[in-house]
Amino acid sequence: MSSPSLPREVVICEVGPRDGLQNESTLLSVENKLALIEGIIDAGAKSIEVGSFVHPKAVPSMADTDEVVKRLRKIDGVEYRGLALNFKGVERACEAGVTKVKVSVSASRTHSRQNSNATPEEVITGFGKCAAFCSDRGRELSGAISTAFGYTDEGIIPLEEIYPIVDAYLDLGIREISMSDTTGMAHPGQVYEYMTDLIRRYPDVTWTLHPHNTRGMALANIYAAMTAGVSHFDASFAGLGGCPFAPGASGNVATEDVVNMLETMGVRTGFDLDKVLTVARKVEEYVGHPGDSSMLRVSGF
Amino acid sequence: MSSPSLPREVVICEVGPRDGLQNESTLLSVENKLALIEGIIDAGAKSIEVGSFVHPKAVPSMADTDEVVKRLRKIDGVEYRGLALNFKGVERACEAGVTKVKVSVSASRTHSRQNSNATPEEVITGFGKCAAFCSDRGRELSGAISTAFGYTDEGIIPLEEIYPIVDAYLDLGIREISMSDTTGMAHPGQVYEYMTDLIRRYPDVTWTLHPHNTRGMALANIYAAMTAGVSHFDASFAGLGGCPFAPGASGNVATEDVVNMLETMGVRTGFDLDKVLTVARKVEEYVGHPGDSSMLRVSGF
Repeated sequence: MSSPSLPREVVICEVGPRDGLQNESTLLSVENKLALIEGIIDAGAKSIEVGSFVHPKAVPSMADTDEVVKRLRKIDGVEYRGLALNFKGVERACEAGVTKVKVSVSASRTHSRQNSNATPEEVITGFGKCAAFCSDRGRELSGAISTAFGYTDEGIIPLEEIYPIVDAYLDLGIREISMSDTTGMAHPGQVYEYMTDLIRRYPDVTWTLHPHNTRGMALANIYAAMTAGVSHFDASFAGLGGCPFAPGASGNVATEDVVNMLETMGVRTGFDLDKVLTVARKVEEYVGHPGDSSMLRVSGF
Repeated sequence: MSSPSLPREVVICEVGPRDGLQNESTLLSVENKLALIEGIIDAGAKSIEVGSFVHPKAVPSMADTDEVVKRLRKIDGVEYRGLALNFKGVERACEAGVTKVKVSVSASRTHSRQNSNATPEEVITGFGKCAAFCSDRGRELSGAISTAFGYTDEGIIPLEEIYPIVDAYLDLGIREISMSDTTGMAHPGQVYEYMTDLIRRYPDVTWTLHPHNTRGMALANIYAAMTAGVSHFDASFAGLGGCPFAPGASGNVATEDVVNMLETMGVRTGFDLDKVLTVARKVEEYVGHPGDSSMLRVSGF
């Protein structure tokens, strides 16, 4: 077999301020969140998921996202992404001033019912108004598919169940879709198969892999996705973001671990590893416990 | 790109009793070591690196390897491998009754000098007597190449420096060679490149990858190695085996993490995951601290 072709450069979206912090019981101040976001931009991030616009009682750690976004410095070439799960959230995100809104649907019917009390199709239908709203205001809209590879209560999600969700996103004019391995069940063989198929079937979509490291496979999945042609990845400083379905388990893959792997492979990330490590140490200090970061451990912290 | 071909089944050698335990300050009793080895055999292991035959003052945790091996039940189809670094060790290993002796040389000249006060070539020359001794007694001999991908003090080891070591092993009649990523520096691109080249150049050698998870890349490296045609891997229960050069860093990849990834990929390992987890929990109890195991964490232990 010839050497797998890899992208020469990738985009890593830092999702720590949202996915990393959302389940933390220690609530960070707006100032600390801004310091983290500014630190990761200084480290090279061009895309940051800065928070979610959900009900403050549902996710207390995200209650101040509006203020965080309003106080962010606008920087050319830096994208601030905000997660919203309904029209109210999209309104708030646009009002606060995010560059891009991300909406999300669960590929698992079980998970979708638990999360939204609706089928995936019903959730997608609800995004029509959000898409029109964003379009009117010149804001980009991207779509995430959570539990895209599998769900603990349901097992593997067949690829065929992903197609109608993608089609629905395309109908809304969305051209950037994130495949989220929410429960960290995906393995590199599956990631390679799914992403190869989706890229072939939907070549105009910008595909992102959002891996979780719950079972230690995140870097393997990123490598497999790259050999399939994926060049956009989500990661979280210090590997924060424990899966709520598995207490104690790892969460998102650590940004510093991804940067280290890719840079040593000669794949450009635009990140400065030392600066990412500095931010990751600060995050651990803020939340008051270690995350899950191989590079922090090996660097003696 | 067509789907990478993967082996249908692999051999995982459980190296925990040697590489996992050798740096532990808590010394296990012979009974506890035997319980772990018997447990991992019951979990499906067909190859176990049961200890090393080195000077007891240099590695106190391995001082009782002779007794451990003597007390092991001989089981058809189960291989007991012992590591030796000189003729004295090979003599002891054969006397104790291992099925296979593994000798080792460091590909890094710096590391080789630190470890053996000799050049890699001098170390290899010294193995001639070991090979004759094993051959006379009908014992198999395998060769390991430590720091085969890189060394912290030296950086990347070029592939060209591996060839003369392989040639020297072949001259001794050795046909099973382990590429050890001692410091966990290898990335999947390098592993793919090196293993593809070595398999093409030396098709009659049984190649093993011995990954360390120091920088979180062990599972990615195993996946990359499988796509290159490797089907033999080393792993350690609970991911024990911290790298002495990076205190606090991860060591060997956890056997349970490898078994989980491969079995979910449809690659047969012959291991029962639940039984491996039981052994891994017992190891953590014996050594008195957690190892580095994603599957133990996600299983709520």
